[in-house]
Amino acid sequence: MTSHPGVLTIAGSDSGGGAGIQADLKTIAALGCYGSSAITALTAQNTRGVQGVHPVPVKFVESQIHVVLADIDAKAIKTGMLYDAQIASAVVRTLKAHYREAPMPALICDPVCVSTSGHTLLRQDAVDTIVDELFPIAALITPNKQEAELLLARRGYPAEIKSLHDMLVAADALMGLGSRAVLLKGGHITATLDDIAQFASAHPEVKRVPQGVFGENMEILQLSGDTTKIEELVVDILYQTSGATMFYRPRIDSQNTHGTGCTLSSALASFVAQGYDLVEATRKATEYTHFGIQAAYPVGGGHGPLDHLHGLRPACIPARTPTNKHPFTRLLIQQSASTWKAYVEHPFVVELGKGTLAKDKFVHFIKQDYHYLKYYARAYALLAAKATTFGGVDRAVQTILNVLREINTHKAFCGKFGVTEEELESTPEASATTAYGCYLIETGLQGDSMKLTMALLACLLGYGEVGLWLKRHASAPDGWVVLEGNTYLQWIEDYSGENYQSAVKLGLDVIESRAAEDPPSPARFAEWAGVWQKCTQLEKGFWDMAMNLSP
Amino acid sequence: MTSHPGVLTIAGSDSGGGAGIQADLKTIAALGCYGSSAITALTAQNTRGVQGVHPVPVKFVESQIHVVLADIDAKAIKTGMLYDAQIASAVVRTLKAHYREAPMPALICDPVCVSTSGHTLLRQDAVDTIVDELFPIAALITPNKQEAELLLARRGYPAEIKSLHDMLVAADALMGLGSRAVLLKGGHITATLDDIAQFASAHPEVKRVPQGVFGENMEILQLSGDTTKIEELVVDILYQTSGATMFYRPRIDSQNTHGTGCTLSSALASFVAQGYDLVEATRKATEYTHFGIQAAYPVGGGHGPLDHLHGLRPACIPARTPTNKHPFTRLLIQQSASTWKAYVEHPFVVELGKGTLAKDKFVHFIKQDYHYLKYYARAYALLAAKATTFGGVDRAVQTILNVLREINTHKAFCGKFGVTEEELESTPEASATTAYGCYLIETGLQGDSMKLTMALLACLLGYGEVGLWLKRHASAPDGWVVLEGNTYLQWIEDYSGENYQSAVKLGLDVIESRAAEDPPSPARFAEWAGVWQKCTQLEKGFWDMAMNLSP
Repeated sequence: MTSHPGVLTIAGSDSGGGAGIQADLKTIAALGCYGSSAITALTAQNTRGVQGVHPVPVKFVESQIHVVLADIDAKAIKTGMLYDAQIASAVVRTLKAHYREAPMPALICDPVCVSTSGHTLLRQDAVDTIVDELFPIAALITPNKQEAELLLARRGYPAEIKSLHDMLVAADALMGLGSRAVLLKGGHITATLDDIAQFASAHPEVKRVPQGVFGENMEILQLSGDTTKIEELVVDILYQTSGATMFYRPRIDSQNTHGTGCTLSSALASFVAQGYDLVEATRKATEYTHFGIQAAYPVGGGHGPLDHLHGLRPACIPARTPTNKHPFTRLLIQQSASTWKAYVEHPFVVELGKGTLAKDKFVHFIKQDYHYLKYYARAYALLAAKATTFGGVDRAVQTILNVLREINTHKAFCGKFGVTEEELESTPEASATTAYGCYLIETGLQGDSMKLTMALLACLLGYGEVGLWLKRHASAPDGWVVLEGNTYLQWIEDYSGENYQSAVKLGLDVIESRAAEDPPSPARFAEWAGVWQKCTQLEKGFWDMAMNLSP
Repeated sequence: MTSHPGVLTIAGSDSGGGAGIQADLKTIAALGCYGSSAITALTAQNTRGVQGVHPVPVKFVESQIHVVLADIDAKAIKTGMLYDAQIASAVVRTLKAHYREAPMPALICDPVCVSTSGHTLLRQDAVDTIVDELFPIAALITPNKQEAELLLARRGYPAEIKSLHDMLVAADALMGLGSRAVLLKGGHITATLDDIAQFASAHPEVKRVPQGVFGENMEILQLSGDTTKIEELVVDILYQTSGATMFYRPRIDSQNTHGTGCTLSSALASFVAQGYDLVEATRKATEYTHFGIQAAYPVGGGHGPLDHLHGLRPACIPARTPTNKHPFTRLLIQQSASTWKAYVEHPFVVELGKGTLAKDKFVHFIKQDYHYLKYYARAYALLAAKATTFGGVDRAVQTILNVLREINTHKAFCGKFGVTEEELESTPEASATTAYGCYLIETGLQGDSMKLTMALLACLLGYGEVGLWLKRHASAPDGWVVLEGNTYLQWIEDYSGENYQSAVKLGLDVIESRAAEDPPSPARFAEWAGVWQKCTQLEKGFWDMAMNLSP
């Protein structure tokens, strides 16, 4: 399945934005395809109706189709309002010419004759043209009751479509007009569950696709005030040479039905372009349209449009791309820029870099760091316990092993500063250490593994940033960081060194891919960002504690 | 802030779909506004360039604007390609006429003169018209380097814009053309951080808005392979009577710049329509455009378009609406329909409803239910421990109190069946009970409170559904459920009764609102649905155990 397969819509323009190519392009984009358009006619239109039509010169309609298809591959094509016979023929002529050597992609033809508001959008003379010239190359036509009656009347099928049985007969008759399949839309015919049951027993050969209909063990939802009417169902019948399928769902009482036909046919084209067969494409397209009506918001004073983007929610993290590998981490750092800066450029770090840091302060720091690392290791053990994959367990345990190794070098390091192992163990824990350590454990018990990962991140990334920052200012021409003879050189080397930096790299990759695989809602992102910021503050507090020799 | 404020775009149509009203409407929709359009000219265009232009008759341009504004309130208006002097004047005339009595919403004017592909989109004779007639009513004009030079040249400002200083001088000169503000886009001028620093010291009065620029404590990201070039920055200057602001961000090497100007100006209009001031609207609109270029996917053989929907992700739960109050629960039930049915219409339930259920099976059930309820209460205690609000703690504790009350009636109930309290306590726990009970606790320890809530849901909702189902089939004409003289009548009354059903109602409301406030990603939804289905299976297993008297 191509990423964003191309879909071309050949239709009218609705200045009101709710129907025509405007509805088509919103639908196509919302469903993950790429839409291009050839405009056949402009309308001056709003939610109350069509006030005027300006047909586009036939030559220019042809040239739009030609120019688009010459450059942008279409996996499906949809036609809507074709206005008159000349334009309709021109469209057929141009498509046939373009696909002379190649097979034509699925052509979904919405035989738009009359607008929701009752305005004629297809000249009488054009009806024969679309039937005789367009239908024969169409993979599917999608007439509603009114359009079906109009199309069939010209073929000596005078009857009105009133029942499900009428629909089936009409769909069969419409197949006679030359398209490979017919979707007869029953929006104007109301059926009940009993009608469906009766129809089903009379026509067992017709496949049935119920869509979110009640009665199937959902009485609690009804009792809790769901008002969807199951007394009134909307039924669509898809007729293919392979057989008929009926789709039915509860009717929604709504004024927001402007552009429903355009939306459905462009949704069909989009799903077909993505490789779905007609039955599945119809199921998905009718549900997309159904929910679009349900989610509609008020626009204008007449028949408002659907909400075409109902199926999408705002993302709070930019997409991860080759030029932006860490959108999530960058956002975290930017959002807490001042706290983060106060942490990674802390006076403790600066004095450590200059080599001027008082020894007792550093000793206080490494003693408390010893206690902190115990919490840190235990938090990773908790993370392992919360993992759902062996990979997750492994990553957490590897970190614990690193900490245990670090502890030994830490002890040796402390020895250099005259701190014995006994002293390390017996040193009382400072409040800043308790606050930070216990916050890690509490976060692990309170939330899921991602939340705990967020809590563990500030330490991993912060020390990495400090290491690189000091290293850079040591090598810079105006470098204020002293390496040679610096009492704390090893500490700087450790955190700027390859070992630690590769752990940082791994950590970054883990959270960036998890955030990309499971994009958080704004609420969840705020929770993560809160944990991150809290921990940067606790890190700053930890160094304050060292600088002030606080208990 | 109105939901979906209206934005009208008055511009050309790009058949290729990447620029013009097509880009405008995608942008406006993506940013949560409602877009309508008045088309000034059609182009036959693709990513390689403009092949032809069909200007729309002046009267019809007027009528599109008139018809839209007569019905759909616009909070901001954007103009793009106006093609010639007649159309440009007509647009100004129509807007002035419509807003004779009311204040005109912010008018964002993108003085489109030349397309990205170099095609002239504004006749020479129209330049004076837009300057003399349109700019004076514009809240903002958004020229790029080329357009700014062209506009200023006609005002005897021959110089080329090469540097940040040139930009500032040009922006100041452009203010002289009559608009209330100017956004001079620096897309074609490259600056470095040093250029910015120098400019800043020379012009301290110019506010600076860095956008995701490196150097601010993000060295770890660079080390981990972020390739964004900070050597090359793109700078835009917003000039207002209140002062100038410069926005700068890393340049992205990309062919996907087709429609950038249209996108930026319609994004500006959308944010202004939402009530943001020009500085904030510019920051958000430039970032939206920046990420749109970054997330672009290949289309056509030339300059491809941006990804206008980069900021949105697919939702897996339909919007919660007055006619669809339980979209989440309905989806859960539909997705696991067969398991759910096997659970709530279990033979155990059927025989219980008929009153034919063997007493020893029921006794086995209530003994094991006693053990299960202990796990259930403890799981809610865990939920309370994981809550982040007092409301959350309260809801969980209320449930525990209900269970404790239930336990007493349960004991009395067991007494009727000759089961003593000692017997209840001493009965060994069946594997089905252990499986279900321990799964609840494990889920609570492993995940967050929502995941635990999902695990507790199948029991709450299932027994509610069973109660209503039995009650309905007792009252139905063909009712097979016997109430009178049914040994298990009280059990039926309990779960169909008001107490239990109001608990179900509360539970439904809690999860529906939590799912709506924190919409899950597809990955997270799958995790939730997995837990739900697992628990419906464990519930069915629990009744199998009772039917088979399994240990």
